[in-house]
Amino acid sequence: MRLQLSTWPEVEAYLERSTGIVVPIGSTEQHGPNGLIGTDALCPEAIAWALGERHDILIGPTLSLGMAQHHLAFPGTLSLRPSTLIALLRDTLDSLARHGFTRVLFLNGHGGNIATLKAAFAEVHATRSLAAAPATGAPQPALFNWFLGRRVRELAAELYGDAEGYHATASEVALSWYVAGVEKSATMTPRIAPLGSAECDAETFRRRFPDGRMGSDPSLARREHGARFLEAGVADAWEAWQGLIDEE
Amino acid sequence: MRLQLSTWPEVEAYLERSTGIVVPIGSTEQHGPNGLIGTDALCPEAIAWALGERHDILIGPTLSLGMAQHHLAFPGTLSLRPSTLIALLRDTLDSLARHGFTRVLFLNGHGGNIATLKAAFAEVHATRSLAAAPATGAPQPALFNWFLGRRVRELAAELYGDAEGYHATASEVALSWYVAGVEKSATMTPRIAPLGSAECDAETFRRRFPDGRMGSDPSLARREHGARFLEAGVADAWEAWQGLIDEE
Amino acid sequence: MRLQLSTWPEVEAYLERSTGIVVPIGSTEQHGPNGLIGTDALCPEAIAWALGERHDILIGPTLSLGMAQHHLAFPGTLSLRPSTLIALLRDTLDSLARHGFTRVLFLNGHGGNIATLKAAFAEVHATRSLAAAPATGAPQPALFNWFLGRRVRELAAELYGDAEGYHATASEVALSWYVAGVEKSATMTPRIAPLGSAECDAETFRRRFPDGRMGSDPSLARREHGARFLEAGVADAWEAWQGLIDEE
Amino acid sequence: MRLQLSTWPEVEAYLERSTGIVVPIGSTEQHGPNGLIGTDALCPEAIAWALGERHDILIGPTLSLGMAQHHLAFPGTLSLRPSTLIALLRDTLDSLARHGFTRVLFLNGHGGNIATLKAAFAEVHATRSLAAAPATGAPQPALFNWFLGRRVRELAAELYGDAEGYHATASEVALSWYVAGVEKSATMTPRIAPLGSAECDAETFRRRFPDGRMGSDPSLARREHGARFLEAGVADAWEAWQGLIDEE
Amino acid sequence: MRLQLSTWPEVEAYLERSTGIVVPIGSTEQHGPNGLIGTDALCPEAIAWALGERHDILIGPTLSLGMAQHHLAFPGTLSLRPSTLIALLRDTLDSLARHGFTRVLFLNGHGGNIATLKAAFAEVHATRSLAAAPATGAPQPALFNWFLGRRVRELAAELYGDAEGYHATASEVALSWYVAGVEKSATMTPRIAPLGSAECDAETFRRRFPDGRMGSDPSLARREHGARFLEAGVADAWEAWQGLIDEE
Amino acid sequence: MRLQLSTWPEVEAYLERSTGIVVPIGSTEQHGPNGLIGTDALCPEAIAWALGERHDILIGPTLSLGMAQHHLAFPGTLSLRPSTLIALLRDTLDSLARHGFTRVLFLNGHGGNIATLKAAFAEVHATRSLAAAPATGAPQPALFNWFLGRRVRELAAELYGDAEGYHATASEVALSWYVAGVEKSATMTPRIAPLGSAECDAETFRRRFPDGRMGSDPSLARREHGARFLEAGVADAWEAWQGLIDEE
Repeated sequence: MRLQLSTWPEVEAYLERSTGIVVPIGSTEQHGPNGLIGTDALCPEAIAWALGERHDILIGPTLSLGMAQHHLAFPGTLSLRPSTLIALLRDTLDSLARHGFTRVLFLNGHGGNIATLKAAFAEVHATRSLAAAPATGAPQPALFNWFLGRRVRELAAELYGDAEGYHATASEVALSWYVAGVEKSATMTPRIAPLGSAECDAETFRRRFPDGRMGSDPSLARREHGARFLEAGVADAWEAWQGLIDEE
Repeated sequence: MRLQLSTWPEVEAYLERSTGIVVPIGSTEQHGPNGLIGTDALCPEAIAWALGERHDILIGPTLSLGMAQHHLAFPGTLSLRPSTLIALLRDTLDSLARHGFTRVLFLNGHGGNIATLKAAFAEVHATRSLAAAPATGAPQPALFNWFLGRRVRELAAELYGDAEGYHATASEVALSWYVAGVEKSATMTPRIAPLGSAECDAETFRRRFPDGRMGSDPSLARREHGARFLEAGVADAWEAWQGLIDEE
Repeated sequence: MRLQLSTWPEVEAYLERSTGIVVPIGSTEQHGPNGLIGTDALCPEAIAWALGERHDILIGPTLSLGMAQHHLAFPGTLSLRPSTLIALLRDTLDSLARHGFTRVLFLNGHGGNIATLKAAFAEVHATRSLAAAPATGAPQPALFNWFLGRRVRELAAELYGDAEGYHATASEVALSWYVAGVEKSATMTPRIAPLGSAECDAETFRRRFPDGRMGSDPSLARREHGARFLEAGVADAWEAWQGLIDEE
Repeated sequence: MRLQLSTWPEVEAYLERSTGIVVPIGSTEQHGPNGLIGTDALCPEAIAWALGERHDILIGPTLSLGMAQHHLAFPGTLSLRPSTLIALLRDTLDSLARHGFTRVLFLNGHGGNIATLKAAFAEVHATRSLAAAPATGAPQPALFNWFLGRRVRELAAELYGDAEGYHATASEVALSWYVAGVEKSATMTPRIAPLGSAECDAETFRRRFPDGRMGSDPSLARREHGARFLEAGVADAWEAWQGLIDEE
Repeated sequence: MRLQLSTWPEVEAYLERSTGIVVPIGSTEQHGPNGLIGTDALCPEAIAWALGERHDILIGPTLSLGMAQHHLAFPGTLSLRPSTLIALLRDTLDSLARHGFTRVLFLNGHGGNIATLKAAFAEVHATRSLAAAPATGAPQPALFNWFLGRRVRELAAELYGDAEGYHATASEVALSWYVAGVEKSATMTPRIAPLGSAECDAETFRRRFPDGRMGSDPSLARREHGARFLEAGVADAWEAWQGLIDEE
Repeated sequence: MRLQLSTWPEVEAYLERSTGIVVPIGSTEQHGPNGLIGTDALCPEAIAWALGERHDILIGPTLSLGMAQHHLAFPGTLSLRPSTLIALLRDTLDSLARHGFTRVLFLNGHGGNIATLKAAFAEVHATRSLAAAPATGAPQPALFNWFLGRRVRELAAELYGDAEGYHATASEVALSWYVAGVEKSATMTPRIAPLGSAECDAETFRRRFPDGRMGSDPSLARREHGARFLEAGVADAWEAWQGLIDEE
């Protein structure tokens, strides 16, 4: 059940049977020579939509902008400052709390979002903690990174081995192509991109990773792989969701 | 050409032939008994995508969250505070400036965003103006509200007359249904919703507009009308785009 | 009754008979070759003071700084960033709420303030809306732009026709001269200033409007016109105030 | 020369002969049983206007809102948060820097503003200091508190002795009455108000100072005293201004 | 009793017998040719620790960073912006309020912190004052500047006379050397540093005070003096603490 | 070499031979029945001081306040909001950049700081990345968590096995006792504390972890272990520092 395609009376009815929601969050950033700029949003969105359909879970709108400052030396990348993303997530959680949602799972497609997401959760918690507010009824935000799920990792290892890499990975390229119904071709030079740290500014990042890839060879990606990653991702996310619901 | 479905080398090539971009912006908010919560994002997104395809214009990711505080008494509404939306738009414009975009048209689907969008543009301009920075090269943001376009207004008047209304309008319900491939039915009581001001808090809004509609009878909406609104909207947006490009 | 000239026991007594207040808001910005930099504050201040005297309405201090970033390429202009003006208005409304004021009419003299004023109202509303706070007792801010009042517009059309213009208009120049007891002379070249959009940065604005006027010929202004604009403005504002008080 | 009553070409001409400006800043807050709520703005404004006329100094618009949180338990008081006032002063200084002003003297009428004014100056300096920006050309803000001037203090001691007090003082009540052309009467019980610290919240302040006065007996104030305080204040301010101009 | 060396059950027990706490606050900034960069933190920390031991007062962690923007042209200086320091102090006070502390004395070692500390207290008070929150139970922050204590000032006058100065003073150099067990030697040229205002940016400050000292000759400092300043400082602080506890 | 105990000419000399600095960062938060509230600051501080002495590295002041909102239901805990900590770290990095430092290693003692530290680094990078500023000369912040070092982890496993735990661990209790020269005794019930997630608000945390420990039995801690952890920590940190210096 997608929030964007529902009416408010339908959401009111949903809240009678569940107070949980899944919100896909991604980024708009370069993904190497053959990866889509929307990769990090397209992947968790597709997994979330399938998850929502199969298990009657409400899926919020995809948050397409993330923390991607290190990719800004590549055309097309858009980035929020961490402080902006924290404010955006705070307002989203405040809005959901208003309606009685108590479980909010952010289904994340971008490693660079993780620190800011956690800082945002802490910012929201801090408001309650400093005010000695009772915990009852407050939404408990949680994070699941689809690309770190067990089944997804196993499938990537099986299909690409070491060529999976860390950014513009073969797996995410495959999944986003499948979902978007597109395919891009590009020569990878070197075949496997260099390794290194992404915790730097945009100029440094581009110097370290000249075509935007980190440790990957996404020329191995195939759209048909995408279908398998989608299945693996939905199974991983469903497991995460059940863990969240069972907690306490 | 959609940014989300492009690679960075494709964006680099686009920037050789144009430094303009269109960014759809909407809201996630109640739209009455039969309107979709995503209406305000779905409509400008569909118009933008068609515009981009027909005229080779780059279309950015849809910004799905807007300023919708007055709708928060209806389940499912998510709202950014104006200050958060200003920060988000500032970061988006800063990112686009980084790549050399000089024309940014926000294709807006939500009346409640207008004041904040203009304040955000002024916030970005103020940084330059206070620093006495030269205007050359800075992105000039502009705003086009699809629901105020001439052709769209004429079509709505022709199809619905006074029952078009001001929120959860028949026209936007028709266009979003068409785009999303859904249709919802609900009885409208009263047939035409009350009129009044939306510049108030959420409780007051719900007291004034009990089912969320403002002055409209969206039971008149038909999916096939949506196809016509799409055409009208694309023509209106194309006119706005050309005006923007011609300016100076 | 002017707040600045009252004691707190007098305000306490006023609150027994009314919980409404009018706050003039303007800007400190260039107004062309013969217009005063304080025009936008002087005009609504004079109207508010007369309104307050005739109808026993409390008039708050004039907020002289507004959002005027586009005028910063002309010496003497002072501008608040929109985010600053939002904070200022929030604190003002919070202060008024503390004392039990429930109706706050901002009598505005500057078109460039409108978007930020509306964003500020929404920022204040959002705090309540996100917290699901009851609407009772909260101040309802409202906006009235004296230069858009019916009687004022009719008088300007009668006196100046198309030469009234959009910034450094003949009507505001006349009213401010009358109120301040001054008069300035300057040659207008061209007689009627160019038209265009003011939604840009300061350098662009000055390039578009070399002497600061937009579409006007303020050499037509006469101090004696000012007296008539004052009367028209007070009548328009009184109508707006009554509408506000009647609302709900 | 008052900025509000000047045209931009006049300011441009002024900048040829001087790059200094005086900005009156006050507060909108209770001043005891017979003191005006606008006292803290009216006093420095009157001194600044006279100073400007006699010595050809440009006088900016009066900033009427200050940091008055401790007075909020008395009806009519409006207060900015310190963080808001810092932003307002930063934008004002940034605007003045834009035009080439290098000396900005804030002529202050409210003790409660002092800490925040100094913090604001430091906030503006910090931007330059952290960026290792050259000091040349940046505006040097300075502060002069008219109520602490030597001549003013001597006159207050002569006229009122210990009954001058610390808030709602006899001297400021006299000056503001003179300037505003009003006079209020009220019985003072006790004759001299209690002493104590004002660095507390509003409820505590009102408990300590039940009618709003601190250590004063403003029933001693006379309008004719006001004329003498104005002269003393202008002489003190002129001395402060000359010191500022001579510095370095 | 030092908070850093206590367990939470020990703090819980302390709160049974007292709800007061002392928090040392300093700065990390140049202190001339022979003064330590940590001087402003080391001095109040040592006084606070001794105070806490002798009188069973809980001593919080030393806040080592202060508002030192004017010293940034000297290597090693670290400065918080005033707005950052305000946020830090607000969070500290909010945390202490959470546990039931009602008296918080900041034992300050840096003149440049005073304005920002007072602004921060007002920021915290304003939240309560604007909300009309009852004063009961809220922490009352207070400030004591050890270098302005009566006994300390007398001792400095006795030992150094006019060579004590205003920054990198002989007294603070002596106390910090004693506390840190170090001693530095440097030639002072001129023997007594120039006088002037420190309310300026970093470049201006260094131009005015080339080696960082203001009006002092810290070559007179001796470690054995430090022991006497410590005693004087503890006695002064104890007096301040008792005044705070007695208040109301 | 400790910054706090150095003079500015000594820092100037240091910068001739190195542009790196280590800044210890901790937290002020409960550490179970026998752990010190200052544990997270004391441990990295001691390691940093030893590291600095042995290898001539400049050590900045210890940042004692961290992100500890989840511990606020235990008396004595102080927490910064993530947004405040981000501002504090930004100002610290801006200050260091001013002096020419290019390598800043935060030696961290608190797991709860990690996300906010990374968000803060990204906030600083984003300023450069959005401005397309050249990377040359900007400080590269890096993070080393002493409790995750290889040697430290091995020693903890050897000494405590599974009883080491995740908060109020035996290893950090031992090291802080050793460093502070104290020892506390308390009965642990149950002997090994429960496991679970700390990403929640304060009330929830205390419900999950009633005495503040997470998975640990710190009654196993011994001061003499602390000496060994110090050695292990210094060796781990030295390795991290060398990796940082070698990078690029």
